[in-house]
Amino acid sequence: MKERGLLIVLSGPSGVGKGTVRKALFSQTDIKLHYSISMTTRKPREGEVDGVDYFFKSREEFESLIAQSKLLEWAEFVGNYYGTPVDYVEKTLQEGKDVFLEIEVQGAMQVRKAFPEGLFIFLMPPSLTELENRITTRGTESNEVINNRMNAARQEIEMMNAYDYVVENDEVELACERIKAIVTAEHCRRDRIANRYRKMLEVE
Amino acid sequence: MKERGLLIVLSGPSGVGKGTVRKALFSQTDIKLHYSISMTTRKPREGEVDGVDYFFKSREEFESLIAQSKLLEWAEFVGNYYGTPVDYVEKTLQEGKDVFLEIEVQGAMQVRKAFPEGLFIFLMPPSLTELENRITTRGTESNEVINNRMNAARQEIEMMNAYDYVVENDEVELACERIKAIVTAEHCRRDRIANRYRKMLEVE
Repeated sequence: MKERGLLIVLSGPSGVGKGTVRKALFSQTDIKLHYSISMTTRKPREGEVDGVDYFFKSREEFESLIAQSKLLEWAEFVGNYYGTPVDYVEKTLQEGKDVFLEIEVQGAMQVRKAFPEGLFIFLMPPSLTELENRITTRGTESNEVINNRMNAARQEIEMMNAYDYVVENDEVELACERIKAIVTAEHCRRDRIANRYRKMLEVE
Repeated sequence: MKERGLLIVLSGPSGVGKGTVRKALFSQTDIKLHYSISMTTRKPREGEVDGVDYFFKSREEFESLIAQSKLLEWAEFVGNYYGTPVDYVEKTLQEGKDVFLEIEVQGAMQVRKAFPEGLFIFLMPPSLTELENRITTRGTESNEVINNRMNAARQEIEMMNAYDYVVENDEVELACERIKAIVTAEHCRRDRIANRYRKMLEVE
């Protein structure tokens, strides 16, 4: 009996280093994650393969999928649609594979609505920790600098409220270790394991 | 601002290898856990130090602590009391240290009542997995053997229901890796981190 895979969504403020962490994570061999292939209406570039780099669709096809709620999330950039096809994610999860999605915060909120059982990880800039240190040690920053940083911190805390986990991106390797630990731990959650065994016992 | 430590309770059926996993975990240097020192009324053995190996108490002292609810859990074996003093655990958690408790299932249930915010890990014998494989592959075991194993599995699933995580003890090293991942992941949980930052911002 295959355990259903986990949908892991990595997001966070722009510039926090989501892409760098994702690339580092996929270069490692001790974790098996399946990258969610995006769908787009932009034309394939030299060497790009349909179903590998992207699922390439026409505008009409894409809009029809939007109308059918066949996209976990989507957005339009510079005249082209980009989105995450729900069927591909669903099929991969049913095969017992963990699917990894790296995505902007607006997209992550769309995914959360469509897929509340996903694992939502907020990548946090280390500045919050620096801020904490600064406040704790009562540094000599001007009131204005401190106020600005406090406001930024408040906004980031509001953003992280919709997530299950918060991973500090102080060092890419450490951030990767934390994400791997979260995936391992989630696979050990009692509700997942007990349900699997309960189903197995009922089958007989 | 120190984050409060986690109380980690490792339990599971007798003979599953809790002590072996605990020893392996404490021999590793990449995780900092503080072992919860037990209290007992038995006499110190040669070389045992009060406050290191055990807190040694008289029967009257121990019974007075029971009456004051100063023990997270306790039991009597062969005429001596053994238990976990709540004050020591509480003080260590407040210092921001993770406290580790390895304990029988009856004791774990007492701790769960007194300390529901603890992290309860059920160490699972690999036989459940073997059972799963056997059922999945439709082996040639007799009905009686299969029935006995199914009943044992049902009882173990009932026991694991009170736990947050289930770790299979297929190999001691793997079980340790999973427990370390659980502790790392729990420290990344958004509620913990967001609350800490919220408190920090309100202080100002």
